[in-house]
Amino acid sequence: MVNQQFATAVHVLTALAFNRKDLMSSDLLAQSVNTNPVVIRRLLSLLTKASLVTTTRGKSGGVKLSKDPNQINLKDVYLALSPVDPMAPREKSPLKECPVSCSMYSIMTKVSVGTQKATLKYLESQKLSDLIKKIPKS
Amino acid sequence: MVNQQFATAVHVLTALAFNRKDLMSSDLLAQSVNTNPVVIRRLLSLLTKASLVTTTRGKSGGVKLSKDPNQINLKDVYLALSPVDPMAPREKSPLKECPVSCSMYSIMTKVSVGTQKATLKYLESQKLSDLIKKIPKS
Repeated sequence: MVNQQFATAVHVLTALAFNRKDLMSSDLLAQSVNTNPVVIRRLLSLLTKASLVTTTRGKSGGVKLSKDPNQINLKDVYLALSPVDPMAPREKSPLKECPVSCSMYSIMTKVSVGTQKATLKYLESQKLSDLIKKIPKS
Repeated sequence: MVNQQFATAVHVLTALAFNRKDLMSSDLLAQSVNTNPVVIRRLLSLLTKASLVTTTRGKSGGVKLSKDPNQINLKDVYLALSPVDPMAPREKSPLKECPVSCSMYSIMTKVSVGTQKATLKYLESQKLSDLIKKIPKS
């Protein structure tokens, strides 16, 4: 499910932004998220493709952000997961004699696009550098 | 699922707005949506509770909008279905030693609330009276 995956991706990237100086292992990230390392590795592969993280292999390897936390926003994260739009209309055979039925796909497509735009505009305003300000430094 | 239910609710209310002069039966609405009348009746019960539609019982009965189409917007429709916020964070036991883990629930709650607000603001701007303008009059 993309929503849980989005939350996990934000968690992982926030952890990497918070611990900028160190490489982090997928095992450590999995502990922080409280999930299976396999879930984290699958996610890291998507985040690498989207150029948000860089992985160094080997014994002392690990993951780090590819950019500064103020250059990554939650729209980048959302789009990296190629989510299915939750408001996207399904194609259904319309009732041909009913003008409302025949127009609904185009009406709901407009609503879906508008909702998606509003969501992405908000997510774009949320940078990782803002999110880590809310974490107490121990 | 609320997303499909939302699309169905918008379809039903758009049909009622387009055919304002007539009462419509749940069977006719079901034909237009291409779904089971039981689905429509369950939905009409929620829309009635939210004061969006009025049902007249009996042989010549049916459903109509309770208000003018320019007084109903898609936020009203969305909230009538009491949807679960798709971005809402799940409560997970955080890793106590990890400040990121301990902060994620509050961070994701803020993201969820912000996304929900942005979505509702867009939906509020979309009135039924606007939607029916896109339907060709035969």
